[in-house]
Parts: sequence; structure tokens; C-alpha cells
Amino acid sequence: MLDVVDINCDMGEAFGRWRIGDTDDATLMPLISSANIAAGFHAGDPNLMDETVRLAAEHGVGIGAHPGYRDLQGFGRRRIAGTARELVNDMVYQVGAIREFARRHGAPLQHVKPHGALYMEMAVNRELSQIFMQYMRTVAPNAFVFCMAGSATELAAQEVGQPVIREFYADRDYDDSGSIVFTRDAGRPDAAAIARKVVRACREGRVRTVTGADVDVPFESICFHSDTLGALDIVRLMREALSAEGIRIAPVSQVKTR
Amino acid sequence: MLDVVDINCDMGEAFGRWRIGDTDDATLMPLISSANIAAGFHAGDPNLMDETVRLAAEHGVGIGAHPGYRDLQGFGRRRIAGTARELVNDMVYQVGAIREFARRHGAPLQHVKPHGALYMEMAVNRELSQIFMQYMRTVAPNAFVFCMAGSATELAAQEVGQPVIREFYADRDYDDSGSIVFTRDAGRPDAAAIARKVVRACREGRVRTVTGADVDVPFESICFHSDTLGALDIVRLMREALSAEGIRIAPVSQVKTR
Amino acid sequence: MLDVVDINCDMGEAFGRWRIGDTDDATLMPLISSANIAAGFHAGDPNLMDETVRLAAEHGVGIGAHPGYRDLQGFGRRRIAGTARELVNDMVYQVGAIREFARRHGAPLQHVKPHGALYMEMAVNRELSQIFMQYMRTVAPNAFVFCMAGSATELAAQEVGQPVIREFYADRDYDDSGSIVFTRDAGRPDAAAIARKVVRACREGRVRTVTGADVDVPFESICFHSDTLGALDIVRLMREALSAEGIRIAPVSQVKTR
Amino acid sequence: MLDVVDINCDMGEAFGRWRIGDTDDATLMPLISSANIAAGFHAGDPNLMDETVRLAAEHGVGIGAHPGYRDLQGFGRRRIAGTARELVNDMVYQVGAIREFARRHGAPLQHVKPHGALYMEMAVNRELSQIFMQYMRTVAPNAFVFCMAGSATELAAQEVGQPVIREFYADRDYDDSGSIVFTRDAGRPDAAAIARKVVRACREGRVRTVTGADVDVPFESICFHSDTLGALDIVRLMREALSAEGIRIAPVSQVKTR
Repeated sequence: MLDVVDINCDMGEAFGRWRIGDTDDATLMPLISSANIAAGFHAGDPNLMDETVRLAAEHGVGIGAHPGYRDLQGFGRRRIAGTARELVNDMVYQVGAIREFARRHGAPLQHVKPHGALYMEMAVNRELSQIFMQYMRTVAPNAFVFCMAGSATELAAQEVGQPVIREFYADRDYDDSGSIVFTRDAGRPDAAAIARKVVRACREGRVRTVTGADVDVPFESICFHSDTLGALDIVRLMREALSAEGIRIAPVSQVKTR
Repeated sequence: MLDVVDINCDMGEAFGRWRIGDTDDATLMPLISSANIAAGFHAGDPNLMDETVRLAAEHGVGIGAHPGYRDLQGFGRRRIAGTARELVNDMVYQVGAIREFARRHGAPLQHVKPHGALYMEMAVNRELSQIFMQYMRTVAPNAFVFCMAGSATELAAQEVGQPVIREFYADRDYDDSGSIVFTRDAGRPDAAAIARKVVRACREGRVRTVTGADVDVPFESICFHSDTLGALDIVRLMREALSAEGIRIAPVSQVKTR
Repeated sequence: MLDVVDINCDMGEAFGRWRIGDTDDATLMPLISSANIAAGFHAGDPNLMDETVRLAAEHGVGIGAHPGYRDLQGFGRRRIAGTARELVNDMVYQVGAIREFARRHGAPLQHVKPHGALYMEMAVNRELSQIFMQYMRTVAPNAFVFCMAGSATELAAQEVGQPVIREFYADRDYDDSGSIVFTRDAGRPDAAAIARKVVRACREGRVRTVTGADVDVPFESICFHSDTLGALDIVRLMREALSAEGIRIAPVSQVKTR
Repeated sequence: MLDVVDINCDMGEAFGRWRIGDTDDATLMPLISSANIAAGFHAGDPNLMDETVRLAAEHGVGIGAHPGYRDLQGFGRRRIAGTARELVNDMVYQVGAIREFARRHGAPLQHVKPHGALYMEMAVNRELSQIFMQYMRTVAPNAFVFCMAGSATELAAQEVGQPVIREFYADRDYDDSGSIVFTRDAGRPDAAAIARKVVRACREGRVRTVTGADVDVPFESICFHSDTLGALDIVRLMREALSAEGIRIAPVSQVKTR
């Protein structure tokens, strides 16, 4: 059973004058402990990256780079058949950009979390995950990589000793393999049901799948999405429920070293 | 009179499968001491950035970020009417990306040189130069900013103590104000004439302008462009001529501290 | 005094999963007579263009191409220093794309209206307007060009006989030259005041400027922006006020041939 | 045995100031009968599209739209997992743009040929090919679709009566299924060997595969790539060899109606 947990959320996922979802980042930022900040390929532009990193730094929220496929129109949710080397170079580029804004605002890079279809691809693509981890070992050996338990990403990190944080997806469904069901549009999920699911996952380490079975889900961080409709209700109810159970929300570094 | 000088050149200015100019970077790299590496907005993609930074590091060439306007089609040679804050954010993004590749290859960021129309804009835009220098002071206080003598860029750097390197443009014409004549297409200039012009500039600190007058040009680095036709001849003749005069080519750090 | 007038509005100005403004196109479409449809450079993607053109065709709304600068991040509101030839080629590209979607949905191209900073540039750039009109004469001699009275755009059209529609800007301020005050952000204007301003303009052909003076504003179409906050209230009140005055709203072809 | 055949080639595949391959379009255009013109997504910009369409029109070369995946960096050679509807909308956009430039230069749209990985995807994706053909039937019922014999593209066209042209790939290898071996980089192939292969294909309708077997290859057009190294030699030798055999090179319309 977890008595301390991180809450991570995708942040800075607008672009130019456009917005997405019904909740703004300034409202959500005080309610989370880790921010995955879009880096310009699937969402985010340099102005927004600057604002979002500053906002995270002000709230003591851990700053993470959230690199995605180069696909603004598809929001990084469409797989692109690049080579492992190409895709890792795309990630290096994006991580470097986020890290520069973090440096500007006096904050360290806490973690890297690949976005959308790239996250799913890394989870099953051993070569891609391995090349990415070589890069992380070289330039950011203490930064956490966020991933799903049992994924190729986790295994590749373990092979080289890169620290990982495993996630529980609050606003996504699970299949019997313990993997999330990837979707382009999550609709507006039931916030109270999510809160119950999260509490159970923290207590029992288990989640009910789409077939009605139970699977084990080891994790250190809870993820929800700022573009899920009703994101604000989701995180508020979740925080209340965790608090009522005596589960503390804390940055990743405290979660890992307890 | 200069007895040691830096030679800088724009590098990594291809994109995807496309190339520009008639000289490849691997041939030019051993002949220069500082590389201005395109960072994805006017040219360059993450794969090429990785290769170019690695190549520079292997040859002990100083690595510089070469941020430009977000305009691949126009190669960063068309002014975009962004605000100073927007343009600096675009530069932070690009500098961060280059710096990450440099870190990956174990090399420091030696300098930043804005590209094309952005370089020209900074030279006359005091607010833009000032906001940029605030950023540099915060995150890269020892990195050089490349600029023209007398430009708003140089003045802004001096105000805050950011180190600068002033450039002499080997393959561009000068006007009577001591500024270069900006061009979209330099044609194929006479390499021998360039070599003579460069030697005279090093010896006398003066250059003949388009009107036939002479103007003073204080500088520590000689710039030529890899996409100028005949770039390889230009740099070879220039190096020979400098060597014949006993002028040594060396990295920026040695030029400044002599 | 006008007894029939067109109402035009920018439509399809989202991109990918992002939205802008607080009003959706499906709500506004039945309330206008001409749609300026974004064509992918400042906003709009092929999926949205297809939907928006179809929606306009279903409501009998005149379909217009709304070409802009190639600047998604800046929403086409930042001038780019391209040559006249380059910018016209960019417009040809965008007009062709919109026209293809119109053809797919069985509707003609009614008009072309340049967007944002490109509209403002054409209004003062005689060469740009002239090259654009040569293109229009060649391939769309019956399509209207939307412009401001007295602009270089109108003059260039008159020189070659291209039909024009002059616009009154409902949600923008006027200066004493009769030109609108260009803004990046119009805030949330007073819808009732706009309705009064529009009615007066239709009756008297005059508008109060930012200095308090009155200027003449000849026009055949009223423009408002779908991304202005409160756009739905603006168009509803404006339609009521026009109706109360016996001014009919009708497609451009009827306005011109009355 | 064929006594008349079309030669098609990808044209206009540069971007901005960048070039690709060692042969320029102005040299190749007089040697081909159909041009597949890049439309901005994988290559090509509006300036180049205008020039290339004009050049084709001047030489009486059939103008084809060459839509690709939205992937400049990857040159359209990386599959993007878009839905069929999305990908067809991307093609409509690009075809419309090319058609507008053709209209400007007084030439009709002769054909559409999808590019690179999109061509390969359509060849195996029945839904994608079918939705694309519905679009073609609606707006360009007489334009040819270029495809491989036996592909899903050909079948979808036959179902609705859209005219097709089947291609023989001069500078690509074939596998035993009669499909080409897709490659990111074709190197510099042997031009004389290609000429012999092409003549045999025209005479016997057969080609030797990578395993040494022979397969049937029905076709009406020969394709080679302008970015293949030595493209000019390839087309010259091929034309000589065809001529020596009495095989005439002619536009698609003549090939089909013989």
C-alpha cells in the first residue's frame, strides 16, 4: 500500500492562440506535483513553454519534458514510422528546449515523459527505449523516466540504472495485460468513479479492466490529462479521496526515497 | 593589427533529405574554428543537429547555437514581425536544443549567433537585444554573442557584461555605415579577392565599401557562409593568405584572452 | 443608405484538436451570409476545411477562401517580409485548396478575403495587390475580393475590373483615415454598442473614430470575427437591429446587383 | 507488347532554398511525358509549384498532383497512422493546390499520384483507396490515378470506374509478389541495366525480381525518380533504348486510347 504518491499531469498543451480542454493550467498547477510540459512537436510553443515552466517552478511542481511526435495537427496521437535514431534525436531536441526554459527559471529537469503515441511506441519498442536510455544516462542520469510498469521503457531503464517512475492512469481504461487502452478522445469521464479507482489502486495495487478482471498495477505516480473534460473535478475529487485515506501527495523525489 | 583570429561558419543548414550550397560540412569543419549550428527554425533538423554537433566536437571547433526566425521556406531571411518577448522565447528554445546535443557529445556551448534576418533585426532593435542579453546573463553568462561592431546587439551585451565577438563578413559587401549589405543570394564571389580583403581587414582594421570608401571594422572573428557558392575555395585561400601573413587561426577563447 | 447587406465572418479557424474563441462555427453559420474559410497557413487543417466548407454549403452561405501568412503560431497576425510574388503564390496555394473542398461539396468559390496581417499588407502594398489581381483575373474573374474602401486592394481590383466587396468592421475600431485599428486581441466588446454602430453605418455610411471624429465608410458587407469573445451575441444583436431597420441580410451576389 | 508508353517522373521536390538529387527539373522536363508535382506536404512550396507547373505546361507534359504525408523532414517516406478520412482530406487539399496552379497556367489536371509511403499505404489499404476514389469521382472523374497493377488502389478505381494508369518502376527493385521494394535511398543504379529492364518490360510484360524469378508487370507508364542519383542518364538511355525498339513515348491520354 502506498502512503505517499505523486500526481502528474500534461501541461502547456495549447499552441499559439489556440486552447484545448476546459481547464486552464494556472488552475491545475497548484493541485499536482509533477508537470509534463509539451515541447513544441505535438503541442506547445516557446512562449507557452516559458510561461508553463515558470508556473511550475513557482508552485514547486517538478518539471518534466513531454516530447512527442512531430505532428501538431494530430496532437502526437498518430504513430510516425521514424527510425529509433530519428525519434530519439527528436526527443533530445525537445528535452533540451524544456531544460533551457527550466534553467531560465532556476529549476532542474525532474523527469522526461514521452507523449501520446510516442509513449505507447516506446512501451513496446525495445530498441527505441534502449537508445533513449543511453542518451539519458549520458546527459541526465538523475532525471526520472515516467513509464508503465512492465513496458519496454521500464526494462530499458532498469538495464542501465536510469531511475523510473511508474504511472497509474486515472482517466484511462485498462486492458487485461495491464496496459492502458489508448484513445484519441476520452470523452467526459465520471470524476467520482475515478477517485474510487485511484484510492483502490493506491491501497490494493490493483485495477478493474475493461473485461471486468483485476490486474496488478505497481506505480509511484498518478496521471490524469488536462485536456480530459472535467479535469479540474477529477483532480479535486481524487485529492480529497486520497487525503481522506491518509495518502500524502508529494514530489517524485520524496515518493521514491521514502 | 590582429595576430590571431577566429573563423566562423554557418553549419548544419540542410533539412531532412535536402541540401544547400556545393560544399559539405564534413569538408569545411576542419578548416574553421567556430561553428554556428542551425537549430531547426530556419534550417536544421534534430538528426542533422546531432551529426553537426558531433562533427564540431570531434574537430575541437567551438559549438555555437544559430537560432533563426521560424521560417523554413524563407530560410530565416524574411523578417517576421514578432514581439521582442516572442522572438527571445524562440531563441531560448533553439539554444536549449543545441546545448542538449552539445551536452550529449561532451562539449560546451561556446557562443550564440542569431541567423539571417534575425541577426539583422537584433542589430537595430535595442529592446530585442536587451531581453536576449537578460536571458544570456541568467543561463549562459560565459557564452559569447557574435555580432557586428556598433550594433544594438553589441551595445546591449556591453551594458550587462555579456562577452561578445565582433565579426568581419568575408563574403558580404559593406556599406559606408560599416554594416553589411544583406542579400538573399550572394552568387559566386571571387575567392582570391575575398582573401585579400580579409588580410587587409586583419592588418589595417579597414574594409572598402560598395561606394569605394574605407570604413573601420573592428572584429575578432571572420565569418563566411557554407551556402555561398565556392565556400571551400573561399576558406582555403583565406587560410593560406592569413598563414602567409603570420596570422594564427584559433578558437574564440584564445582570441579574446591574448 | 443600404437596404440589403452581407454579413461575413471568419470560419474554420481552429487547428487539429485546438479551438479558439467561445463560439462554434456550427452555431454561427446560420447567422451569416458569407464565410471566410481558413486555408491552413494561419489556421485551419484539411479536416476542418472539409467540415467548414460542407457546413457553409448546407446553409447556402457564400464560400470564401481566407488565405493568410504561413504562421500558425502567430495566427497570421505577424507580417512576414516575403516578396509580392512569394505571397501571391502562397495565396494561390490556399485558394486552390479551399476551391477543391468547395468543388467536393458542389459549391462555387464566391470570394477571396486575405486574412489578418496579410489583409492589412495588401491594403497598403500596391504591387502585392496588383499581382494578386492578375491571378484572380486569370482563374476566378467572377469571384469577389473582400477589402476596405480606399485600400490598394480596392484600387488594384478596379484597375483590372475584378469585382470587390467593401467591408465594415463591426468589432474593430476605426481611425480618422477610415482604416481599422489592427489589434492582436480585441477583448470582449459591447455587443449592443456594435449593433448601434452597424445600423448607423448602414443608414448614414459613417462611423465614429477612436478620436471622436466621423468618417465615411462605404461598404456592402459587415465583418465580425468568430474569435472575438461574445461573437454569438454580437451577430444576434446586429441581426435584430438590422431587421428592425428593415435592412435585409443577403448573399454578396444580391447585394451587388440590387 | 507495348508500342507506346508514358514516362512519369516526380518533379518539384525541392523546398525553399534546398535542393535534392543531382539533376534539375528544367533538364528532365523535356524528356518525360507526365510530371508528378509535389504539393507542399512532403516537398514543394508554392513558389516551386508555380514554376514546376508552368514548366510542365510549356513542354506539353501532363500535370499530375503528387500528394504525400505531411512530413517535410521525412520527405513523406515515413508512414503516419492517420485515419482514411484524414489522409484523403490531406490529399484533397494538395490536389486542389496543384490544380489551382495548373489553372493559372492554362493546363488541365491530367492525373493524381500519391507519393512515397502514402502510395505504398494506399496500395494495401482498401478503405483509404475507396474514400479517395469517391472524392475523385466527384471532382475529377476524368483524371487518371497512377498506381501499381493489382494494388488496392487499382481495385478501388475499377470498382467506381475511375481511370487508372499502371506503372513500371524503372529505378526500383521488384519482389516476387510484383510489388516494388520500398527504399529510403536508392543509391546510384546502373542506367544501362535499367534501360534493358525497361525494354524487356515493354516487350514481354515481365521483370526479374530480387530473388531471380520473373513476374508479370502490366503497365502503361514508366516511372523513374528525379532524386535518384544519375536520373538524367537513366532517362536518356531509357529513351534511346525504347526508340531503338520502335516504342513511342506519349502522353497518358494517347497511351490509353490506342
